[in-house]
Amino acid sequence: MQRKSFRNMSCPIARSLERVGEWWSILIMRDALFGLRRFDEFQKSLGIAPNMLARRLNALVAAGLLERRRYSAHPPRNEYRPTKRGRDFRPVLIALLAFGNRHFAPEGASVTIVDAETGVEAEPIIVDRVTGRPIREPEFAWVPGPAAGERTRQRYARRPHSALPEATASPGPPRPTPSPAGSRTRGRVGRVRPLPAGERRSRDAHDSTACQKQIGAYKEGSPK
Amino acid sequence: MQRKSFRNMSCPIARSLERVGEWWSILIMRDALFGLRRFDEFQKSLGIAPNMLARRLNALVAAGLLERRRYSAHPPRNEYRPTKRGRDFRPVLIALLAFGNRHFAPEGASVTIVDAETGVEAEPIIVDRVTGRPIREPEFAWVPGPAAGERTRQRYARRPHSALPEATASPGPPRPTPSPAGSRTRGRVGRVRPLPAGERRSRDAHDSTACQKQIGAYKEGSPK
Repeated sequence: MQRKSFRNMSCPIARSLERVGEWWSILIMRDALFGLRRFDEFQKSLGIAPNMLARRLNALVAAGLLERRRYSAHPPRNEYRPTKRGRDFRPVLIALLAFGNRHFAPEGASVTIVDAETGVEAEPIIVDRVTGRPIREPEFAWVPGPAAGERTRQRYARRPHSALPEATASPGPPRPTPSPAGSRTRGRVGRVRPLPAGERRSRDAHDSTACQKQIGAYKEGSPK
Repeated sequence: MQRKSFRNMSCPIARSLERVGEWWSILIMRDALFGLRRFDEFQKSLGIAPNMLARRLNALVAAGLLERRRYSAHPPRNEYRPTKRGRDFRPVLIALLAFGNRHFAPEGASVTIVDAETGVEAEPIIVDRVTGRPIREPEFAWVPGPAAGERTRQRYARRPHSALPEATASPGPPRPTPSPAGSRTRGRVGRVRPLPAGERRSRDAHDSTACQKQIGAYKEGSPK
């Protein structure tokens, strides 16, 4: 069950998966956020082997997503509660739920999210908290952050042309806009500019401006 | 590498994990949505063993998230492109990215999502598409859907008391509200009503109204 570790990858997705990427862990978090607390509750819910469950619970405690609390001294018994970090995992579960309902529930949803008052079914989408705009291309782009290493920067600089949005990208000069002072701005990105077919620019690996000009918008969200 | 299948679970999260829950698969989808297309591109990006990569690509094609296209007859070479279903997986990646940046990037973000025009960093949250309201408790609840089996219904009916929102829940009569005709409403749920401590009501397994009255709001989202 040991696998290659993603821990030395700087990608935030890989790092999250390192901690909670294992199937069982995600379902354990689902159950913990649902309110299950005790070993036998998780075991009954998941039909998981005890040794596997113990291992995954320990890993989730070590990763800071669950907190272990002793609720009985004799016999010694622990319960497991989501931490703040564990509660922050909920959006991942909601995104998985929406994806599963859309694509793998031909007979209809077995679990769904509704307005607690009206019972109207919700349709989860991801937006920017500040502006409320849906996070999708080409309005938003994935870019190297301030802690990006050379590998990440090169990765984004070398982005394949085929990834550029075919329908929406229009050639034009990069338009880096000054960021509002005091905002959480950590980077700037020019407007999406497809490279001419066949062109792959060389660049000084340390020229981050040149790097950023070539950053393509990572396709995000999907047109609803 | 063979594990217990989640396919016979009706939970939409489990079903999604069944198809794309493997670590590598999620990173392959990340790369595919980034624009990588060819076997050697994925291999170089991930440092994954060829036999493992081939297996995961085949699984993602079988699950309908990637489409295989031959781009060379001699020698035979395929490329892999995200399908519509594959593009719908992006919100899961965005949720994982936000979670990783928040909790596992002590040195700062290595990859972040920004407004493509201004460079201002986005803060991804999940909202209901129609109303724009953040999906969190107690405003929204997870409930059995129309295709829920008996096991799912019982699961929600038996929800542990500890899961009820401690700070927000207030006792009161259930207030099922008629759903707008023609909406995508699939269920109704009464207002969250904590059961008195120690009480666990028995109920007729086929009395779905009684079932729904006892549904607690599954804590969602987290107060920002």
